[in-house]
Amino acid sequence: MTELKNDRFLRALLRQPVDVTPVWMMRQAGRYLPEYRETRKKAGSFMDLCTNPELACEVTLQPLERFPLDAAILFSDILTIPDAMGLGLYFAEGEGPRFERPIRDEKQIEALGVPDPETELRYVMDAVRTIRRELDGRVPLIGFSGSPWTLATYMVEGASSKDFPTIKAMLYERPELLDKLLDTVSRSVALYLNAQIEAGAQTVMIFDTWGGALTPADYCRFSLQPMERIIRSLKRENEGRKVPVILFTKNGGQWLEAMTDTGADALGLDWTTDLADARRRVGDQVALQGNLDPSVLYASPDSIRAQVAKVLASFGKGNGHVFNLGHGIHPGIDPEHAGAMIEAVHDLSREYHL
Amino acid sequence: MTELKNDRFLRALLRQPVDVTPVWMMRQAGRYLPEYRETRKKAGSFMDLCTNPELACEVTLQPLERFPLDAAILFSDILTIPDAMGLGLYFAEGEGPRFERPIRDEKQIEALGVPDPETELRYVMDAVRTIRRELDGRVPLIGFSGSPWTLATYMVEGASSKDFPTIKAMLYERPELLDKLLDTVSRSVALYLNAQIEAGAQTVMIFDTWGGALTPADYCRFSLQPMERIIRSLKRENEGRKVPVILFTKNGGQWLEAMTDTGADALGLDWTTDLADARRRVGDQVALQGNLDPSVLYASPDSIRAQVAKVLASFGKGNGHVFNLGHGIHPGIDPEHAGAMIEAVHDLSREYHL
Repeated sequence: MTELKNDRFLRALLRQPVDVTPVWMMRQAGRYLPEYRETRKKAGSFMDLCTNPELACEVTLQPLERFPLDAAILFSDILTIPDAMGLGLYFAEGEGPRFERPIRDEKQIEALGVPDPETELRYVMDAVRTIRRELDGRVPLIGFSGSPWTLATYMVEGASSKDFPTIKAMLYERPELLDKLLDTVSRSVALYLNAQIEAGAQTVMIFDTWGGALTPADYCRFSLQPMERIIRSLKRENEGRKVPVILFTKNGGQWLEAMTDTGADALGLDWTTDLADARRRVGDQVALQGNLDPSVLYASPDSIRAQVAKVLASFGKGNGHVFNLGHGIHPGIDPEHAGAMIEAVHDLSREYHL
Repeated sequence: MTELKNDRFLRALLRQPVDVTPVWMMRQAGRYLPEYRETRKKAGSFMDLCTNPELACEVTLQPLERFPLDAAILFSDILTIPDAMGLGLYFAEGEGPRFERPIRDEKQIEALGVPDPETELRYVMDAVRTIRRELDGRVPLIGFSGSPWTLATYMVEGASSKDFPTIKAMLYERPELLDKLLDTVSRSVALYLNAQIEAGAQTVMIFDTWGGALTPADYCRFSLQPMERIIRSLKRENEGRKVPVILFTKNGGQWLEAMTDTGADALGLDWTTDLADARRRVGDQVALQGNLDPSVLYASPDSIRAQVAKVLASFGKGNGHVFNLGHGIHPGIDPEHAGAMIEAVHDLSREYHL
């Protein structure tokens, strides 16, 4: 494998010294970029883009051509696993993801198989390999998966949901049935992430988009524990380097201590938690990734720079900070505003690493 | 005024002893009730229902005819104040509230007047008086308002929003302009709530639906401080009784300590915070209201009872708990499930008040 030319992202995840704070953006390959919208049009549907390794590679690299980002993230969807399980993922225009065959009863849950990543999800592994080759060591590549709870919400509801009527009824009515579903999904996620690592992902991130919709006790049982089991079964070294694991529960600011104990190397934070407080709470156990309010990018470049300065000051001196937005970049953002943020992070963070 | 026959709700808000834990539901007069949908049809539009004191009274009392609730809440909308300011509130079917004339620039903000409650919002005060008369002392009546920040999000965006592009740009770009807008809205809310109290509201609640979308520092400046200024200017005694104030920031679980210092008598909690933890954090300063996950009501009556038991056990023995959902009741809930919850609260809480 080619030598990694910029490893500050991996170093920061492991709380090692860096020259400036590394930065990337959730959804950095996405609709806010005109070149992404072009490739998307060329591809056909959103899933056509995800399942085409060459085009997935193309959009993965687009933000790196524009901005001095410190990491690339595999372009894919969080719902590839349930799709490979046979649920029939499709995207209705302007409606978000849907499944043709949602999972509702015990028989369906028992019939669910664990997809083999190198056959049933081969297009993802091919994308990882293609991207690694094309990156040629410029920056590390992040692999990812949705969390078991997050995947299960889509699998059971059959679509995006605001209050999760079906899966919450299952949770409160038949928790052991939900455990069973989460167990199958967790084993699938572990295999999937390990296959991404073997295909070349240099770090992996678990996106727990909907863990924050649970009570504290239910979060522990139905979201955190499955994620912890996954983390414990991941390959943590590859190509002679550590493979750090990042855990991100949106709206999980109240549960950082519990998240710290999962064995993850880094925790993602949204903007509702103060980085200084978070750092005090997690101590030296994990690195922190975040946490600029993505809506800051609606403001002017000067205001963006001022808000970047606040986030950097909040973390302060020392190792273990990866700069990111607190959630995915909004589709309506001007790419130049994203550029202003990235430039400000590199400029203004130098003093914190002297 | 008629004597209050059931005052356990007011007593619990003031952390005084009660026989059983009082219970009410946010949005208890709402679409999940067939009788509500009937009256709504009769009224015409949603705003026709809000502005008709007789019909607003009718729907306010409907849940009390069905269930042994311990409080009534004024039927109204949180956006009556901006409507009275001349923004032109309307409801597009299935789209939520919208304003014909959103507030975007300095000139518009400076031109905003503070509505006089007894003239420009007279229909609300008439509804309060009508409901008090018809309640005839059965249970106390709750008045309410949206928080200044929450109202401002609708006023500036012109509609419901997910990521608040316009008002967040204002917040990060011209914070002093947002302060000015919030100041006008805060003075309007204070007058409005005091007028509700004088018209007969026996407690008032401030709904901060969108405070949880802010960073901790911005929450303090743009949501909490305006609410605190309102609370400090409210009439806290009327008809020889204290008038308790309830403060509810959705997704505000990380900021309970700061909310406790506002002078509110009680804090509303959503279900992402554990009641036992919250109680430890707020000490004896405030009562707590909440916090059953509203989606529990999608489960069976037996499961609902089990989850009610958990919430009651989490608060434990002692004074200062009002049972509620952690957010408004969902429109798709079976009314019998709401009934099961209410019955379980009264049944199972007796042991905590011996």
